[in-house]
Amino acid sequence: MGEIIKGKPVADAISEVLTAEVNDLKGKGITPKLAIVRVGAKGSDIAYEKGALKRCSSIGIETEVKEYPEDIAQDAFIEELKKINQDKTVNGILIFRPFPKQLDEEVIKYVIAAEKDVDCFSPINVAKLMEGDKTGFAPCTPTAVIEILKHYNVNMKGANAAVIGRSMVVGKPVSMLLLNENATVTICHSRTKNMPEVTSKADILVVGVGKAKMVTADYVKEGAVVIDVGINVDEQGNLCGDVDTEACVGKASMITPVPAGVGSVTTSILAKHVVAACKMQNNL
Amino acid sequence: MGEIIKGKPVADAISEVLTAEVNDLKGKGITPKLAIVRVGAKGSDIAYEKGALKRCSSIGIETEVKEYPEDIAQDAFIEELKKINQDKTVNGILIFRPFPKQLDEEVIKYVIAAEKDVDCFSPINVAKLMEGDKTGFAPCTPTAVIEILKHYNVNMKGANAAVIGRSMVVGKPVSMLLLNENATVTICHSRTKNMPEVTSKADILVVGVGKAKMVTADYVKEGAVVIDVGINVDEQGNLCGDVDTEACVGKASMITPVPAGVGSVTTSILAKHVVAACKMQNNL
Repeated sequence: MGEIIKGKPVADAISEVLTAEVNDLKGKGITPKLAIVRVGAKGSDIAYEKGALKRCSSIGIETEVKEYPEDIAQDAFIEELKKINQDKTVNGILIFRPFPKQLDEEVIKYVIAAEKDVDCFSPINVAKLMEGDKTGFAPCTPTAVIEILKHYNVNMKGANAAVIGRSMVVGKPVSMLLLNENATVTICHSRTKNMPEVTSKADILVVGVGKAKMVTADYVKEGAVVIDVGINVDEQGNLCGDVDTEACVGKASMITPVPAGVGSVTTSILAKHVVAACKMQNNL
Repeated sequence: MGEIIKGKPVADAISEVLTAEVNDLKGKGITPKLAIVRVGAKGSDIAYEKGALKRCSSIGIETEVKEYPEDIAQDAFIEELKKINQDKTVNGILIFRPFPKQLDEEVIKYVIAAEKDVDCFSPINVAKLMEGDKTGFAPCTPTAVIEILKHYNVNMKGANAAVIGRSMVVGKPVSMLLLNENATVTICHSRTKNMPEVTSKADILVVGVGKAKMVTADYVKEGAVVIDVGINVDEQGNLCGDVDTEACVGKASMITPVPAGVGSVTTSILAKHVVAACKMQNNL
């Protein structure tokens, strides 16, 4: 029987380190600050925001929520974003996406200051991610996957890792991060043939596709570590992941639950990036 | 016995299409132009330049070589590059790298205009490559790999592809391009354990590591297509690839030679990118 590995201990460990770092920074007269930019008031954005604010507050990071009307014009939004870029008290910027349709993400992503872009919206950070350049910020969710693996002492070096999904939100970034950790990485997706045959050779299986309980026991190698990045609602209306946890826990050595898995770690990664941004901006 | 698939027929086919396109453009009063930027006069740069000039000339693309002294200062070089960015007669820019050490690639890569950056030096094009955004320019060599596979009617969709090497020059970009073609992609590298076991499951094997004849028959699946991106000099002083072609040709269904393989296709990809850049810049 595999171990259910939860996100909270990972988040707590990261927060503990960050709290000490922020205390040090405050001793130097520096307080890290995150600006959260939200257009409209979508429920899922507000829920994440609440978690992020709570996490930052507990660590000692200042926060400011910039809420804009659902119908803000692109030029006006860009002007606002430029002001936040220039605001020296702000070290990190998180922008909720997708935008309402009058705002063109393909334009706006070039506006956010790369050095404050703590969730990899800017193409500059996307390029750094691909290059393995650690001066950039990888997106928070894929980074959370890596932190979970590290926290639970999962060996990535030379391990066979399979990633299901090739999105820019999960699959591609997590593949690049696993590669940085020296895993041999196989990227699977909707066109992959005989997916269980491919993924059942992997020591580490990361799933991020958005299909409730898609991954069954036949996808999993005996003793594999399974990280479930999906968040879905099942037929009974309950939250569930992309992995059928019950069906797979017998075969895996470790498996993250949904909820209480990867999702619990992302805000601490966000906080970690804000602190890192603050230090870089202060040449520390 | 597998077929040795050469680069020349691929390059010729691409050139033929481009020649017609350039004729069309000239009919509209537009002549595509490539600027080649070279610092110093390294033999390998000059050899590639010679091939590029010949290819462009045969297609009808104008060229201009900008040679700068080996000891040019960074500021002066950046000023020159900005002038080329602004020169409306220039549609594509190829810059030879690596630079002499007074020039910081990490600074200069942000200077080249992304829309003229036909060999993926700019982080904007790196990000587009990772995103699968076809308005960008992928690097010429990995693109040549894909064009060879297409030319020889190799099915990539749903195929298991293995890439040996994770450089930004070959491995990572070719992995992203294979993913765009809907292959299931496994990225192997120096830390991969039991590499032959991994790669011998691949229908398509792409090798770009720079180790003479590293890939022997045990790396190759019976009937696989093998693309050799390496260019090395063997113990006898002859050019050779990363693949031991003689040892593998019996097992592969198709295999590219070195020389006369991938390397023969890159300048036609360069020309293709210049024509594409020219069309985009003219809103065609």
